[in-house]
Amino acid sequence: MSQLQRITIAPSQLQQEQVLLTTQQKHYLKRVLRLREGDRFIVMDGLGKWWLARLTEEQAQVLEELAVKTELPVAITLMIALPKGSGFDEVVRSCTELGVACIAPVLSDRTLLNPSPQKLERWRRIAAEAAEQSERAFVPTILEPVAFSDAVNNVTAFHRYICEARGEYVHLQNLLTDISGEIVIAIGPEGGWTDKELEEAVTFGFQPVSLGGRILRAVTAPLVALSLISAACEG
Amino acid sequence: MSQLQRITIAPSQLQQEQVLLTTQQKHYLKRVLRLREGDRFIVMDGLGKWWLARLTEEQAQVLEELAVKTELPVAITLMIALPKGSGFDEVVRSCTELGVACIAPVLSDRTLLNPSPQKLERWRRIAAEAAEQSERAFVPTILEPVAFSDAVNNVTAFHRYICEARGEYVHLQNLLTDISGEIVIAIGPEGGWTDKELEEAVTFGFQPVSLGGRILRAVTAPLVALSLISAACEG
Repeated sequence: MSQLQRITIAPSQLQQEQVLLTTQQKHYLKRVLRLREGDRFIVMDGLGKWWLARLTEEQAQVLEELAVKTELPVAITLMIALPKGSGFDEVVRSCTELGVACIAPVLSDRTLLNPSPQKLERWRRIAAEAAEQSERAFVPTILEPVAFSDAVNNVTAFHRYICEARGEYVHLQNLLTDISGEIVIAIGPEGGWTDKELEEAVTFGFQPVSLGGRILRAVTAPLVALSLISAACEG
Repeated sequence: MSQLQRITIAPSQLQQEQVLLTTQQKHYLKRVLRLREGDRFIVMDGLGKWWLARLTEEQAQVLEELAVKTELPVAITLMIALPKGSGFDEVVRSCTELGVACIAPVLSDRTLLNPSPQKLERWRRIAAEAAEQSERAFVPTILEPVAFSDAVNNVTAFHRYICEARGEYVHLQNLLTDISGEIVIAIGPEGGWTDKELEEAVTFGFQPVSLGGRILRAVTAPLVALSLISAACEG
């Protein structure tokens, strides 16, 4: 299965076992990937389902639904203060590889950047690419950036953690022995959360946690958190 | 302590409680960091020791040795096939943050690149910078690249793992319940190790392991492995 090419479609493109390919997708399959009529490839709906499909003259035909082994049994939301520069591209890419379900960018007291709509489109494109490359069945959702207060106020997940480099907090690793359902993990900007933000998160049920004894960059911390959660699920 | 500036010295620069600063270090402390006579800063020898020092007119005086809480109790060697492009800079930077003790670049069957001596110098500079920024006491060693066969043949560590994305191997996480001393973890290039390389590693006592159900880029896999090992030590 790993040798087959994959494309992501909108759920509406799948109708009665036919995949209604867009012009772009046809071009990609036939010209870029050089598939011919009768060749098989994988169709993902970005919502957790995979199908094996066969290219027909104008469209593609679904052959069977595929069992997916690449998605985590928990839904992880990464709530992350936007880092400076282009570091966020890399965060989106690598956290997608690591199995994140949703990335919720937040504007924190130490975040000046309010990204353009083009940025959001760019991050969504990177997430789709990374999901395909890492053979995920699911393209993570990238939410529009909101203020930190609004973000922590609107969390419904049972497991809520906020990472803090300074201070004597329990290691995230020690809290992952019995996790299921939805997890939210909040990661601050360079320089960390302000005391006010940390207090506010605690008010809304977030538990402050440590990711270890060294000071991590804002672009490294999300990978560490995701690595630990996914290994707790899959290890 | 975290507010104090840090510099790394060669062990030979420390003589009888005096730090013999180089011209470059004096320039850095006085002109770049704007420290004045009497100001305190931290001196690291890159081998695990930290001292509090005070700038004097021409040199610096050691005030006291500092207890270090940022180093792992195990020595991790990352044996890594050189990835294409500039990805290795980021691997060196983030693995240093995560506590690696030694990075051993290897030339694998799928690695074309034989880096220039300038690259090695660059990686060593990045490791020193990242060690300072992450408040480590230890600057990781970056070895000169060698052939994969020579690298696996010369390992003395008790714990030896080789990561492989394809195939049904035990998750690294499951092997980290009782680790101490030295660990070597080998991470392949884009496209993975060849069967021949994997077999050769197994011959030399390496255990093939998985890092989870998704296909990781060569630049992401080292961070996952380091995250899991460091959390197993500190969590």
